[in-house]
Amino acid sequence: MPLPQNAIAKIVRVALEEDLGRGDITTDACVDADARGRAQLVARQELTFCGAPVVREIFRQIDFGVRVSLRCQEGERLKKGDVALTISGPAAAILKGERVALNFVQRLSGIATLTRAYVDRLPEGCSTRIADTRKTTPGMRILERYAVRCGGGRNHREDLSAAILIKDNHIAVCGGVRQAVLRANASAPHTSRITCEVDNLEQIREALEAGAEVILLDNFDEKQLWQGVNAVAGRALVEVSGGVTLDMVASIARVGVDVISVGALTHSAPAADLGLDWVTER
Amino acid sequence: MPLPQNAIAKIVRVALEEDLGRGDITTDACVDADARGRAQLVARQELTFCGAPVVREIFRQIDFGVRVSLRCQEGERLKKGDVALTISGPAAAILKGERVALNFVQRLSGIATLTRAYVDRLPEGCSTRIADTRKTTPGMRILERYAVRCGGGRNHREDLSAAILIKDNHIAVCGGVRQAVLRANASAPHTSRITCEVDNLEQIREALEAGAEVILLDNFDEKQLWQGVNAVAGRALVEVSGGVTLDMVASIARVGVDVISVGALTHSAPAADLGLDWVTER
Amino acid sequence: MPLPQNAIAKIVRVALEEDLGRGDITTDACVDADARGRAQLVARQELTFCGAPVVREIFRQIDFGVRVSLRCQEGERLKKGDVALTISGPAAAILKGERVALNFVQRLSGIATLTRAYVDRLPEGCSTRIADTRKTTPGMRILERYAVRCGGGRNHREDLSAAILIKDNHIAVCGGVRQAVLRANASAPHTSRITCEVDNLEQIREALEAGAEVILLDNFDEKQLWQGVNAVAGRALVEVSGGVTLDMVASIARVGVDVISVGALTHSAPAADLGLDWVTER
Amino acid sequence: MPLPQNAIAKIVRVALEEDLGRGDITTDACVDADARGRAQLVARQELTFCGAPVVREIFRQIDFGVRVSLRCQEGERLKKGDVALTISGPAAAILKGERVALNFVQRLSGIATLTRAYVDRLPEGCSTRIADTRKTTPGMRILERYAVRCGGGRNHREDLSAAILIKDNHIAVCGGVRQAVLRANASAPHTSRITCEVDNLEQIREALEAGAEVILLDNFDEKQLWQGVNAVAGRALVEVSGGVTLDMVASIARVGVDVISVGALTHSAPAADLGLDWVTER
Amino acid sequence: MPLPQNAIAKIVRVALEEDLGRGDITTDACVDADARGRAQLVARQELTFCGAPVVREIFRQIDFGVRVSLRCQEGERLKKGDVALTISGPAAAILKGERVALNFVQRLSGIATLTRAYVDRLPEGCSTRIADTRKTTPGMRILERYAVRCGGGRNHREDLSAAILIKDNHIAVCGGVRQAVLRANASAPHTSRITCEVDNLEQIREALEAGAEVILLDNFDEKQLWQGVNAVAGRALVEVSGGVTLDMVASIARVGVDVISVGALTHSAPAADLGLDWVTER
Amino acid sequence: MPLPQNAIAKIVRVALEEDLGRGDITTDACVDADARGRAQLVARQELTFCGAPVVREIFRQIDFGVRVSLRCQEGERLKKGDVALTISGPAAAILKGERVALNFVQRLSGIATLTRAYVDRLPEGCSTRIADTRKTTPGMRILERYAVRCGGGRNHREDLSAAILIKDNHIAVCGGVRQAVLRANASAPHTSRITCEVDNLEQIREALEAGAEVILLDNFDEKQLWQGVNAVAGRALVEVSGGVTLDMVASIARVGVDVISVGALTHSAPAADLGLDWVTER
Repeated sequence: MPLPQNAIAKIVRVALEEDLGRGDITTDACVDADARGRAQLVARQELTFCGAPVVREIFRQIDFGVRVSLRCQEGERLKKGDVALTISGPAAAILKGERVALNFVQRLSGIATLTRAYVDRLPEGCSTRIADTRKTTPGMRILERYAVRCGGGRNHREDLSAAILIKDNHIAVCGGVRQAVLRANASAPHTSRITCEVDNLEQIREALEAGAEVILLDNFDEKQLWQGVNAVAGRALVEVSGGVTLDMVASIARVGVDVISVGALTHSAPAADLGLDWVTER
Repeated sequence: MPLPQNAIAKIVRVALEEDLGRGDITTDACVDADARGRAQLVARQELTFCGAPVVREIFRQIDFGVRVSLRCQEGERLKKGDVALTISGPAAAILKGERVALNFVQRLSGIATLTRAYVDRLPEGCSTRIADTRKTTPGMRILERYAVRCGGGRNHREDLSAAILIKDNHIAVCGGVRQAVLRANASAPHTSRITCEVDNLEQIREALEAGAEVILLDNFDEKQLWQGVNAVAGRALVEVSGGVTLDMVASIARVGVDVISVGALTHSAPAADLGLDWVTER
Repeated sequence: MPLPQNAIAKIVRVALEEDLGRGDITTDACVDADARGRAQLVARQELTFCGAPVVREIFRQIDFGVRVSLRCQEGERLKKGDVALTISGPAAAILKGERVALNFVQRLSGIATLTRAYVDRLPEGCSTRIADTRKTTPGMRILERYAVRCGGGRNHREDLSAAILIKDNHIAVCGGVRQAVLRANASAPHTSRITCEVDNLEQIREALEAGAEVILLDNFDEKQLWQGVNAVAGRALVEVSGGVTLDMVASIARVGVDVISVGALTHSAPAADLGLDWVTER
Repeated sequence: MPLPQNAIAKIVRVALEEDLGRGDITTDACVDADARGRAQLVARQELTFCGAPVVREIFRQIDFGVRVSLRCQEGERLKKGDVALTISGPAAAILKGERVALNFVQRLSGIATLTRAYVDRLPEGCSTRIADTRKTTPGMRILERYAVRCGGGRNHREDLSAAILIKDNHIAVCGGVRQAVLRANASAPHTSRITCEVDNLEQIREALEAGAEVILLDNFDEKQLWQGVNAVAGRALVEVSGGVTLDMVASIARVGVDVISVGALTHSAPAADLGLDWVTER
Repeated sequence: MPLPQNAIAKIVRVALEEDLGRGDITTDACVDADARGRAQLVARQELTFCGAPVVREIFRQIDFGVRVSLRCQEGERLKKGDVALTISGPAAAILKGERVALNFVQRLSGIATLTRAYVDRLPEGCSTRIADTRKTTPGMRILERYAVRCGGGRNHREDLSAAILIKDNHIAVCGGVRQAVLRANASAPHTSRITCEVDNLEQIREALEAGAEVILLDNFDEKQLWQGVNAVAGRALVEVSGGVTLDMVASIARVGVDVISVGALTHSAPAADLGLDWVTER
Repeated sequence: MPLPQNAIAKIVRVALEEDLGRGDITTDACVDADARGRAQLVARQELTFCGAPVVREIFRQIDFGVRVSLRCQEGERLKKGDVALTISGPAAAILKGERVALNFVQRLSGIATLTRAYVDRLPEGCSTRIADTRKTTPGMRILERYAVRCGGGRNHREDLSAAILIKDNHIAVCGGVRQAVLRANASAPHTSRITCEVDNLEQIREALEAGAEVILLDNFDEKQLWQGVNAVAGRALVEVSGGVTLDMVASIARVGVDVISVGALTHSAPAADLGLDWVTER
């Protein structure tokens, strides 16, 4: 499973602590301890589904007696009304975990769905990748990056330790693109490429000469993009970032950039609408 | 301060662990240890600001030498270009915390801004409240509820232990509205009101007779709303929930409901755009 | 189960870490790794039993091979000599968890037993409830509140976020009962009732007028109680608190108060006497 | 300070999380953010005080601006009305931490007070020590052992790893006193004495021959105690345990035992009565 | 099992979080989710094996479907090429846990192997014990002490709370050996012996008179050792510490000391060489 | 500071919990609470020093009143007798933290010292880097990698998520070098280079053709190394790994490899000898 079981367990512990850590006084009042039930997680809109391993872990932590059965694949497109999975077992346990499960699944499916929309805008046959950023929800990064992959996107660096990315503020403090890239080269792990954000063509040349391997064009307009890609001329990967909307994807990709990174995938994806429908046991 | 220092400290620990827990190889490479700097957190759009106490704690955990100076109040409306706060001290520390700080502030200000938009749609002089729900981001609930308050909204129950809220699935398992409310009354803390979700007028009468004190009208259309409010007739508070958009707020409020609860405030607010601009020290 | 599995797991982790986290050098020295055993948890006094789910989790964390079999219900009254549950499996595991299990069960049963004694003093047919307070042992609140329920008591608000309770010190700082209740009304969740502690009849009137829904009479003598209940006259719930002993319960209840809250249930209940008797396997 | 700062910090984090982790809606509603105040922690009965370092840490975690000033020593006897310490600073912070602070101080002072009562019953000049046991509240052991010391008592072994103590159940599983003590000797750290619990004089001889250095007489009556102490005859320390009440202390001590260990010190001490009185700032 | 399951689980959580907490991008890329495999943990040198329970827990946390089968005992001597255990199940899970498992097993087996070498140098029939110290790797103490036992060594005190050990710096601050030992006697638990480190014969006499029960001879040369042991003359245990190499063990033991404590067992044991060899499933 | 303050704080919390979490009964017994002292951390051998930020955090967590003053730089070479730093403040606090501080500093300086020895063997002017591996002590990775940098070494990938490294076992499961590298390319973040371990020249060609950017020659002898480097011919970086001893460094470097990664730097570095000498305050 592409999500480490131990990482899921940790995030789920936090989420359950938050909502259920002190009990569920409604369910305890209204539901008999031995009542059993079954519920279906249903898509209430067209969406790209993501989050089943989290649902499984949620109910495992609440009650070992709950059983989660998958009805679709992670990353699968569902139509309105499709069932993503079913949950059966003690009714009280299902009711206690319902909201936490939905909170995860709606967010993750929201991200997968938005990512899928971006990826679908790429011209056929083009090798440009849609990537996420570090603009993730605090505490949820590993899951949100997973949701991006489920939507067909690619991941950027995991965190501040995984790769060098020199941004405008680093350049400002360091005293220039050249100096920043040289210093980065002197200490970067050999397993990581060095990315340098640039504002203009002059900085591109400087960055390439100093050894940058990814040139990040920040907030370039379309004409500048053409110039930038030409200036790099295949000597480095080209990444584009900064307010890229769905409508801009195709034209940017056609310029020949390698990576379009989109913060909105994780910081502004609206929740996908899914609900838990009760199925009367008999 | 309306946010407990200990709760902020805990969430910030998780967020820093996630992004900075293994170091920041770019800043360590490019920035001299004794370099100092100053940066401004600037609104890049009109927004309702929220999150300064979190920013303060982030930099306290990274380096005791960083100083955060507020330039506005929590919940204040900022115009594009307004400075929310300034951060000064060791340049490396500021760079290391930049992204985590922005991730918090953009999300919280996004929620405050959306909440403010909902509240602004309430007719003048009306006593209806805009409330949040438990549809929050796992691990972020205390902050997201705070952001709702900063935007002029009101909080709903904190978690499953704070108050009784009987939902459709409880009723399904319990065998009816009457039985559910009676059982709830038999075990609820006397400090909490009992809320019962209803689908139709018959359930309203049943819930009121059994002692419900808040009637939650779920997905009622406008005509049904009028009937529902009339059926309750002041014997309980009336809450409305389910896909309420900005455009629906005024008309729903005019019906005389007490509470409009809006999941979108926390599950689908787009990030507000803020950035950190470097100010060269001299 | 009315105790969330995840919450029990967390408290048990702390307790085991404290006693067994560094090993049990006696058992490791004296007991063969493959020895098996069975032990009975026996009441050594008349008591109301509470704590089986905690015992189960303790041994689950120590060794998956231990089996806990219940012989009574939670909240059941046991006579001296009655067996509450049996534990069987690897002898070393049982010995390692014995003390931690007893520490939990003796405390929880002590609380349940004292609560039951209070509840038994209520006049028949009276609707007054015996409630706990926030005067719980740090780290044990969720379990202690559960023990109160097992003893027939009712829970008060869970924590400082669950409901508004205006105490003398709030009034002192805020500048008066009226102002405090009005401010509380302006920000309380609609799911919570507002409680106001009062010292005299004048404050009762002030609190009611400002909208208090529960009047907490603190340390009123019997005559004052009558006056207080009459002053409230059904317009709010009446709660009595402050040094209520077993002998005072019946007369206070007869005055017609709704809630008697008793800090001693959790802060001063003596441990109930239970022991673990070894049953030789053959 | 005899309590490790890091250990206090950890326990206090748990306790604040439990009560204040989600905010204090009463104080936030009723108290201005810039109001300041001062409060006194006052003894409402005669007691042996314990807990100031915990109070200090509680308010440090809530708000760096709170100042705690000690008015007495740890372990000092206070009369009703004596002030133990004062707390001054932001009024909201003091109100938010009041209950948690009292919960700790009342419990710890309760233990110190009960311990002091036991110690005071020892005949003058006698070298018998009153010791605690592992019958502590889960999660609170380090503090409760400290309270015992503050009351003039002595600590027993910290946990299952700190020393060998062979109990009846170990003997049952191991097959006899002799074998258990010999096995213990073969693996105990040389820094620990080996204690063996015995039921009769025959077991005393067996234990001594096998090398036990502390003989624990469990539930011996007074005549048996004399026989036991004579049988040991100074070849080992003698510890007495099992339901020792205040009235039994003097006569047991006069028999010449070295240690009287009393579980009730920690499992059944009633809370000492202390309160926080507000002092109007002017 | 001589290692508490809960303690192992905690350390393993930390280790997996560190290496695998954010996923394994190599395995996720290269290995099919349904591929299965089997691998053998093989000794690549002669060694004393230690660590199987940790390996078991590692894979339990990664994937419940992995099965670990032991092929040798803890503490058993393996020759180069011997198989210690086999791991079978989902191939991806085995690959993800390989490095963490090796990191634990190589370190623990390294300690066990070095300890075994020390113990093997003891003259036959001699009762001197080889003991560890508190010079362990931060966070790994419970495992490293276990490895020492697997290698035939004995444990010293667990931590600063488990027994009194007066060192040179305590004596310096306290003002002398006599005063330090007397003060220690006045507060030590009766279950612990008091150890006093000494530099010369005068201090030995002083320590014994004040009641020390273990005399720790620090950095004594061979002649001084003889004098020291004679000075103690059986009135206390004698411990020797300070740079004891393998070659010195036999002669020190012959002097008649009770304990040789060796910091190098845990702070400088080289990793034992073990590897994980893949066995193609068919 | 190149070590994140929050990461140090976390590791130190674990280490103090382990040794001091339950108190220090020796220091509490022997040292007056108001005694003050000063101590020097002294090198007892020639070494490369590392660990001052950890020492500072240790004492900050024990007692805010302790002051740590640096006398040398991180990574500086010290001669026997040189003072690395001084610690002054409450004597009890210094004594309580002494062992934990030494455990960290001796290990980290041991790693720095060994790394420095490897780096010093590189021929002058050569660009080969000495790198660490993931063979670190569980829980200590961030500190151990820092120590490697202090010794002049370079870091390899941080963890399993930071970069792709295809090892023999991946190839075995995946079905060949070509397929593994192609699959890796299809999912790797664009910020990471893809490393492929190879056993022979054929695999080198296969890996290069499939797009590997770092070729890891595992356990190649000197002749094979020459062939390997020639086969790569500058089309990728060349890394050498597997039992590289100090004596082999120079000749391997002269072959022209880019990276020599040495597991022994972290898994087998002996502790460097440092001690804490007390300086009498007067």
